[in-house]
Amino acid sequence: MHSPSELLKHVEQAISEIQYPTYPGNLYQPISYIMSLGGKRVRPTMLLMAVDLFSGDIRKALPAAMAIETFHNFTLIHDDIMDNAPLRRGKQTVHEKWGTNTAILSGDVMMVEANKHITNVDVSILKPALDTFNATAQGVCEGQQLDMEFENRSDVSIPEYIDMIRLKTAVLLGGSMKLGAIVANAKPEEADLIYAFGENLGIAFQLQDDILDVFGDPEKFGKQIAGDIIANKKTFLLLKLQELASKEDHAKLIGQFVNKNNEDKIKHITDLYHNYKIRELATQEMKNYLDKAYSALRKIAIPEARKSEIIKLAEELMNREY
Amino acid sequence: MHSPSELLKHVEQAISEIQYPTYPGNLYQPISYIMSLGGKRVRPTMLLMAVDLFSGDIRKALPAAMAIETFHNFTLIHDDIMDNAPLRRGKQTVHEKWGTNTAILSGDVMMVEANKHITNVDVSILKPALDTFNATAQGVCEGQQLDMEFENRSDVSIPEYIDMIRLKTAVLLGGSMKLGAIVANAKPEEADLIYAFGENLGIAFQLQDDILDVFGDPEKFGKQIAGDIIANKKTFLLLKLQELASKEDHAKLIGQFVNKNNEDKIKHITDLYHNYKIRELATQEMKNYLDKAYSALRKIAIPEARKSEIIKLAEELMNREY
Repeated sequence: MHSPSELLKHVEQAISEIQYPTYPGNLYQPISYIMSLGGKRVRPTMLLMAVDLFSGDIRKALPAAMAIETFHNFTLIHDDIMDNAPLRRGKQTVHEKWGTNTAILSGDVMMVEANKHITNVDVSILKPALDTFNATAQGVCEGQQLDMEFENRSDVSIPEYIDMIRLKTAVLLGGSMKLGAIVANAKPEEADLIYAFGENLGIAFQLQDDILDVFGDPEKFGKQIAGDIIANKKTFLLLKLQELASKEDHAKLIGQFVNKNNEDKIKHITDLYHNYKIRELATQEMKNYLDKAYSALRKIAIPEARKSEIIKLAEELMNREY
Repeated sequence: MHSPSELLKHVEQAISEIQYPTYPGNLYQPISYIMSLGGKRVRPTMLLMAVDLFSGDIRKALPAAMAIETFHNFTLIHDDIMDNAPLRRGKQTVHEKWGTNTAILSGDVMMVEANKHITNVDVSILKPALDTFNATAQGVCEGQQLDMEFENRSDVSIPEYIDMIRLKTAVLLGGSMKLGAIVANAKPEEADLIYAFGENLGIAFQLQDDILDVFGDPEKFGKQIAGDIIANKKTFLLLKLQELASKEDHAKLIGQFVNKNNEDKIKHITDLYHNYKIRELATQEMKNYLDKAYSALRKIAIPEARKSEIIKLAEELMNREY
């Protein structure tokens, strides 16, 4: 059994060994750039943890881990174009640095690079690995489309929201772990269980993100506190409040959407959250998904001791205050 | 042996049978839209002709043919964004109709669809099919990047230009035919020969496009005659003229780049082409690539009679006046 930090080292080592073509330079430099911006490499690390869980060979899983991390970073390049984002991990985004056209095209070729990585898994598992990889990639695109569409809709329901975050972020965590299971020659039903673990953990993680944005420790939370409130972002908290609020409170909320005084706006909307116990309701929803995740993990017929590292990492992810 | 028109029917039938998901509608409608705009379907048809040449099963090759046509149409969506093109095959481009963000994302998910198609080839040839498909996709992206970069450069050499058109368009024709060979279980060296045939034919075709733009029959040529001259496009003709022109004629040419009178501009630049025998030189270059193509085809150890349909189609492609 490897610890998450040991597995992370394998991931970082493998990333540093990827060789991209050098010509045309402007096509490939953005790829090296975004891959070198860091990040927690949660997805490939979780993939390797799934390999370890099913007693597979870590080294054999590196092509799948690189495929997932490369695909994830490709989506960041294209998402940043769509969101018109100037910064990614504190650095210029690719489209800011190289222009939109090159960012589109570097993203495209990066997806080809991801496909090349996944094609390097053992040929005996190539077909199921590709099926899982493609289904995952498709889900992520669908999630991003829904996220964009929800910005312009005022009638997003909570089930729609959960489905959006599932597709946009949780499917990739589930897919990563399922790929790990496939590489380790786990049984299909075990691969599905670890997928369910990853997907439900991903949804719980995203719900926690919504909660921490408002109620996290401002000193530990990496982003502007209550940034979602300022941006009128349709999070679980806001959608739940809209669902429960009286006509009067709903009108108050709508009024706050155009409040230009951020401090005042945060205070008023947080007060509404308190009145309707939105934090508690969101925490309960998050715990429901966490329970689903652990329930799937428990069903995997492997001694509980082998699951300890995955549980430890999941707890670390979920017990953050930021 | 099937005729190209019979194979085209198989291609059109298979395209009409593709089922895309329906949700989110705005993500998948652009895919159905661009796939339904038509086009000559040259690449998948050539793929099936290669299958036929090597006595393979046409039906088994349809996933590869659909992968190629889907990938090609995905590149059209993204290229049209980069070129800011309002029309594609006489209809609104995807980004004009649905907006740039959806066009980026629909293109992305369309590439996933292409990957799903190629994953459906027989598992016994999955790995080589993927390797060829990914290498092809990568080449096309590199070609598009070079094409964009050349617009802003004044020192593009002819070998660089040939390499750009090779990557941007010829690699896809070569890759299509190689995929056909792989599906038909041709030997690797035969697959490489049919690749060389397709790639060199693709370069010859593109050079002919440059020639026809200026010297084609205006009544038969589908586009504005001499559109490349009006746009100062760096074609083989222009680059060859720049290579050969005296200092004086070079200055004349530069002067014409800013001539706003299109008729006058076309006349002056065409005169320069005549003076330096640019048409003849371009035709010679085109024939060199055509010779390379046929030479590769001849080396394939298959009775010449089996090659007749491919040769007929290649001749049709090359003997157009438009």
